[in-house]
Amino acid sequence: MNAEIIAVGSELLLGQIANTNAQFLSQQLAGLGINVYFHTVVGDNAARLEQAIKVARTRADLIIFTGGLGPTKDDLTKETIARLLQRKLVTDEEALRSIEAYFARTNRIMTENNKKQALVLQGSVILKNEHGMAPGMAITIDSITYMLLPGPPKEMQPMFLKYGRAFLLEKLGQQERIESRVLRFFGIGESELETRIQDLIDQQSNPTIAPLAGDGEVTLRLTAKHRSEAEAKKMLDETEKKIVERVGAYLYGYNEETLFEKAIQTLKAQKKTVAAAESLTGGLFLEQLTAVPGASQVVRGGVVCYTNDVKEKVLGVPHAVLTADGAVSERCACLLAENVRTLCQADIGISFTGVAGPAPLEGKPVGTVYIGISTSDNRTDVYPLTLSGQRDAIRVRTAKYGCSFLLKALDGYR
Amino acid sequence: MNAEIIAVGSELLLGQIANTNAQFLSQQLAGLGINVYFHTVVGDNAARLEQAIKVARTRADLIIFTGGLGPTKDDLTKETIARLLQRKLVTDEEALRSIEAYFARTNRIMTENNKKQALVLQGSVILKNEHGMAPGMAITIDSITYMLLPGPPKEMQPMFLKYGRAFLLEKLGQQERIESRVLRFFGIGESELETRIQDLIDQQSNPTIAPLAGDGEVTLRLTAKHRSEAEAKKMLDETEKKIVERVGAYLYGYNEETLFEKAIQTLKAQKKTVAAAESLTGGLFLEQLTAVPGASQVVRGGVVCYTNDVKEKVLGVPHAVLTADGAVSERCACLLAENVRTLCQADIGISFTGVAGPAPLEGKPVGTVYIGISTSDNRTDVYPLTLSGQRDAIRVRTAKYGCSFLLKALDGYR
Repeated sequence: MNAEIIAVGSELLLGQIANTNAQFLSQQLAGLGINVYFHTVVGDNAARLEQAIKVARTRADLIIFTGGLGPTKDDLTKETIARLLQRKLVTDEEALRSIEAYFARTNRIMTENNKKQALVLQGSVILKNEHGMAPGMAITIDSITYMLLPGPPKEMQPMFLKYGRAFLLEKLGQQERIESRVLRFFGIGESELETRIQDLIDQQSNPTIAPLAGDGEVTLRLTAKHRSEAEAKKMLDETEKKIVERVGAYLYGYNEETLFEKAIQTLKAQKKTVAAAESLTGGLFLEQLTAVPGASQVVRGGVVCYTNDVKEKVLGVPHAVLTADGAVSERCACLLAENVRTLCQADIGISFTGVAGPAPLEGKPVGTVYIGISTSDNRTDVYPLTLSGQRDAIRVRTAKYGCSFLLKALDGYR
Repeated sequence: MNAEIIAVGSELLLGQIANTNAQFLSQQLAGLGINVYFHTVVGDNAARLEQAIKVARTRADLIIFTGGLGPTKDDLTKETIARLLQRKLVTDEEALRSIEAYFARTNRIMTENNKKQALVLQGSVILKNEHGMAPGMAITIDSITYMLLPGPPKEMQPMFLKYGRAFLLEKLGQQERIESRVLRFFGIGESELETRIQDLIDQQSNPTIAPLAGDGEVTLRLTAKHRSEAEAKKMLDETEKKIVERVGAYLYGYNEETLFEKAIQTLKAQKKTVAAAESLTGGLFLEQLTAVPGASQVVRGGVVCYTNDVKEKVLGVPHAVLTADGAVSERCACLLAENVRTLCQADIGISFTGVAGPAPLEGKPVGTVYIGISTSDNRTDVYPLTLSGQRDAIRVRTAKYGCSFLLKALDGYR
């Protein structure tokens, strides 16, 4: 099955938003073994949408549309497809009732134009919208499958995952299945990782191994094709084993898992708590950690010690250390980690001090970073780093390094 | 001029990245008054790229390509266009020297395939790459202009802004210019804002007024067309004035300016400092504030008081308050704001306490939020909020509300 994704919406052509729907659907279709050969974006214009559909029909047997299912006169995806395929639009009673219930529940008056959202292509399979009003639909005509999904990602994504995917799986029947698995690495550069497994990448065609780098992390996507899901998984296991033998020390997780989720999980499993003293990261580390649901069980809190005064008065770093060694120093990182641990009564204290830029500080260049990890009264490790890049990138990578050192302290890598 | 943007790269079709290049270029082209009617994404495949170009030529007189200019055999944008247009590829000596210099500078050996990056379409205008190796280029053949830009945003964006834009401006000559201005609002919903200015939106066709909502903010993009830039700006001023008369109280900034940048600016101008106590936001407020370069002049720091212990021991909230009123209470927000102000010796203390979810807390529903602003020993205001949405959205909007109340306290709105 070869697919094209057509996003409908002038806001995309004005650059007000990026086409993240196409990204999401591409990932999903790749997981189902469906090739995506084109994405098209077209505005809220019937003639140009019609033209885009005509082009897509020459090169795809699955066309997925996002957007244009709403109540306004700008929403014309269904209408245009109906005209082109000479299909009627009929009211779906269940969808209509659900729209009416939505208005009743929110104490709002349903205007007439909202009924338009319950219109569906006659004979299509309805994809229920559990997070909004307009239903999606799918229909196969002349060997081409059309799937219509709403534009807002918070409606589109759950609809596809629950109903759209099931429709496609049934359609695919007993064809070859694709299984993929993403291995997530931190603390090793993309080129070094690639060099170490270059021969595996070159030799293997099934599973394939595709590296991708971003935000200081490197991932390897392994993709196996087989008629049997179990066999595909076994192939992935074997390839993973070979990779782990070489670079397993840097592997921290799988698929969509983040370093911060892994840290929260590991802390929970070990019933340990953490507190942080953040200078250059300004709260980023704790923010990322507490973004994980359930963080409150293991994150005590911490201090954003952006100024030397706060380092001294709140976290008890002696004035002499700040003048002799400076705030950006091993000694300061060490004391911050120890003192935030005792101040917040946590099992582990972690500290971040350094120069995020744009200007140097205390004569130390941009990218100089010290991360302290205090695990008890007798043990504090300080890791010096030299990072390159802009202010934001330095802060983000510093927080991630902190998370990786925390995992190391917990012996929680992998 | 009608444009189509063709992004070349299989990583887009696999969903590994979103097509943010098309978003950036669409914004830029809108600013130049060039209509963008289609975006297309195609993989690293010569036959399909050729097909995409053939389609684009039927419907656009400006085709901008991103990606496929690199050294590997997967990079085939230039080669495909050259074959289709029957143009030779020739080595650009300046580009070649710059690539050689790049390798010399980084002490790396230049492999033969890198020379391919210096090949350009014969007769094209070269767009210099000041952030990478592969040059861009632009050429007009049979009334269609082709512009080729590299894929990495950090190379593509500066190249377009410095060289690509200038090429197009010259091409546009004395045509009508488009000026646009974005007005940024916080604290008012999209539908309320629209209702209050509906008659202006309906009446006006030049400038147009386009609302957009996201992350708790609403923006209005005003777009004026005129032959004279000065006249267009005057038209924007007049329309802005009419809008400000109605909803000026919610206007905090312009164009890309964020609430946090505005807060830092205002604090600097008034030589005032701020400290924060963050419970449900977990460091997000301080992180956003310190992400603004120069924040260190006005941000003292703060405490992430994620647990009641930290609220009590570090920020001195009496145990009795935490048991009687609870951590999620007006009283607690008030004390946190006051105490973080004195602890960090700041002019203004701000506090965030509430329920981000997923589960209720202290019997208070998800979305219950209190924000305290303490400006002196005699004055602390607490703002109760009831927010809807998921954990992340609640945290983000809470931090933004805090920023808007801070601006209000500084009398810094607009």
